[in-house]
Amino acid sequence: MDIAKRPRIGVIGGNRAAKKFLDMAYEVGKLIAEKGGILVCGGRGGVMEAACRGAKGAGGVTIGILPGAHRIEANSHIDIGIVTGMGYTRNSLVVMNSDVLIAVDGEYGTLSEIAYSIVYEKPICGLGTWDIKGVIPAADPRDAVEHAFAALKRG
Amino acid sequence: MDIAKRPRIGVIGGNRAAKKFLDMAYEVGKLIAEKGGILVCGGRGGVMEAACRGAKGAGGVTIGILPGAHRIEANSHIDIGIVTGMGYTRNSLVVMNSDVLIAVDGEYGTLSEIAYSIVYEKPICGLGTWDIKGVIPAADPRDAVEHAFAALKRG
Amino acid sequence: MDIAKRPRIGVIGGNRAAKKFLDMAYEVGKLIAEKGGILVCGGRGGVMEAACRGAKGAGGVTIGILPGAHRIEANSHIDIGIVTGMGYTRNSLVVMNSDVLIAVDGEYGTLSEIAYSIVYEKPICGLGTWDIKGVIPAADPRDAVEHAFAALKRG
Amino acid sequence: MDIAKRPRIGVIGGNRAAKKFLDMAYEVGKLIAEKGGILVCGGRGGVMEAACRGAKGAGGVTIGILPGAHRIEANSHIDIGIVTGMGYTRNSLVVMNSDVLIAVDGEYGTLSEIAYSIVYEKPICGLGTWDIKGVIPAADPRDAVEHAFAALKRG
Repeated sequence: MDIAKRPRIGVIGGNRAAKKFLDMAYEVGKLIAEKGGILVCGGRGGVMEAACRGAKGAGGVTIGILPGAHRIEANSHIDIGIVTGMGYTRNSLVVMNSDVLIAVDGEYGTLSEIAYSIVYEKPICGLGTWDIKGVIPAADPRDAVEHAFAALKRG
Repeated sequence: MDIAKRPRIGVIGGNRAAKKFLDMAYEVGKLIAEKGGILVCGGRGGVMEAACRGAKGAGGVTIGILPGAHRIEANSHIDIGIVTGMGYTRNSLVVMNSDVLIAVDGEYGTLSEIAYSIVYEKPICGLGTWDIKGVIPAADPRDAVEHAFAALKRG
Repeated sequence: MDIAKRPRIGVIGGNRAAKKFLDMAYEVGKLIAEKGGILVCGGRGGVMEAACRGAKGAGGVTIGILPGAHRIEANSHIDIGIVTGMGYTRNSLVVMNSDVLIAVDGEYGTLSEIAYSIVYEKPICGLGTWDIKGVIPAADPRDAVEHAFAALKRG
Repeated sequence: MDIAKRPRIGVIGGNRAAKKFLDMAYEVGKLIAEKGGILVCGGRGGVMEAACRGAKGAGGVTIGILPGAHRIEANSHIDIGIVTGMGYTRNSLVVMNSDVLIAVDGEYGTLSEIAYSIVYEKPICGLGTWDIKGVIPAADPRDAVEHAFAALKRG
């Protein structure tokens, strides 16, 4: 499918995470790619890297909206690294560049992105993340990705 | 006191709020000014405007970090309106320009600012706002402002 | 070649331009794609659209760093539209995301990007554009693209 | 006069400059303050610092829109330091926050700001700066400041 028309699924989560969350993120990334979505994330490690690894293993495309000014800081599974030089202020742009989002675990940076998801009226599912009204809780990676794609169709 | 050395207290909250929260915000602004703090906010209506009105009534100084590109959008109690043309992405800058913050009520924009407060390691007190770990709950406006100034001294 | 490793060539120029400049931009885009470069631009019309059309006709990849908050504003030859919601402030990001740049014609927005190219120490060639010290004048599109790729090798 | 209503005069120029340009910038800052303008700049050294020193010596008010995330980087004559954490991308915000601008000397960062002045339709005068169409050349600091205030009245 035309790459410009493919849906963009944001995956948000911490630069570090416990193995169980990295495993979930990997699975989320894999399923996004299998369904033809483009994975958008902050481009760094932890949940972001695991999700990108999953997506690339399944032949997907990954975009990383980076905090710094040099593409070298992207994790090794990012296809399209976009530098901003804006630090955490770029969190808003990660969300703006996604059509729907999936939060996996995550700390306060992730919380800012969850908040922006709702400000920007982007549907968001959560896996073991902040319990915030408006975040659709998912049972597992498959459930999260299915919810995300269903929300796209409704949107 | 030299204006550049005066502490900056961020007041965050919604562009609309119930009267009881506007009254709290007014009182917070008044107390910030009485203690010599500069009030920083997003420059718009609701909680922001009420806090600025309180600060100006007590002879204080107010800074508004605005989403749009024109100072005209500042509420009428802003002394120094700073335009960004960045929309809600400017929420990060509201926090970055504060030394300590007080959240009053608020919805998802406020939640993004609470998250940034903790990311940027700025102490934050809350009045009737999101129940997020790391936000110090305050009993009333006086308690919030006292906590804020005490956190400045420790910081 | 691995998309993440391919060089990024920025093409800057106005949202409107005379036919001779659109023809040059088309040729520049085509040659960038033939040499395996990824074309980066501001994602809008005029010189940007013509260059993207040239690149896509030759099987290339195009990135557009957009001023607004919605991908719909990208021209129809953009593969990867990145929204910023920052208006012209995004000009800095167009340059930051390029390894080397080619300016074709252009007005004041292009001038800001030429200036950023030199601030960020990115080599820049010019075709019928501002006469600014530091911009390498090129004789024609082929000359510009060859200079650009040669600068990459040196850089 | 109400600080929110006072005109904002941007002074742009390099972080380093020859003594003759620092002397001009000092004089420009002094005259801006004498005429009741608020001086806006990038908040750093060189031309910016000299202009702020002139303004403060004459009892004026100075705003510095800073590249980094900490107010400590402001020069010692800045009243209101605004941090952005956006590096040179903040140049756009320096211009957006000015009603009219005066460029003194300057290199490529200044050139980006001159370009933004014209993009944002802000009148701009120049003293020994880039020879760009649209920049009104001034004979000396007094001439520049008089042009700037006259442009405000017309605007």
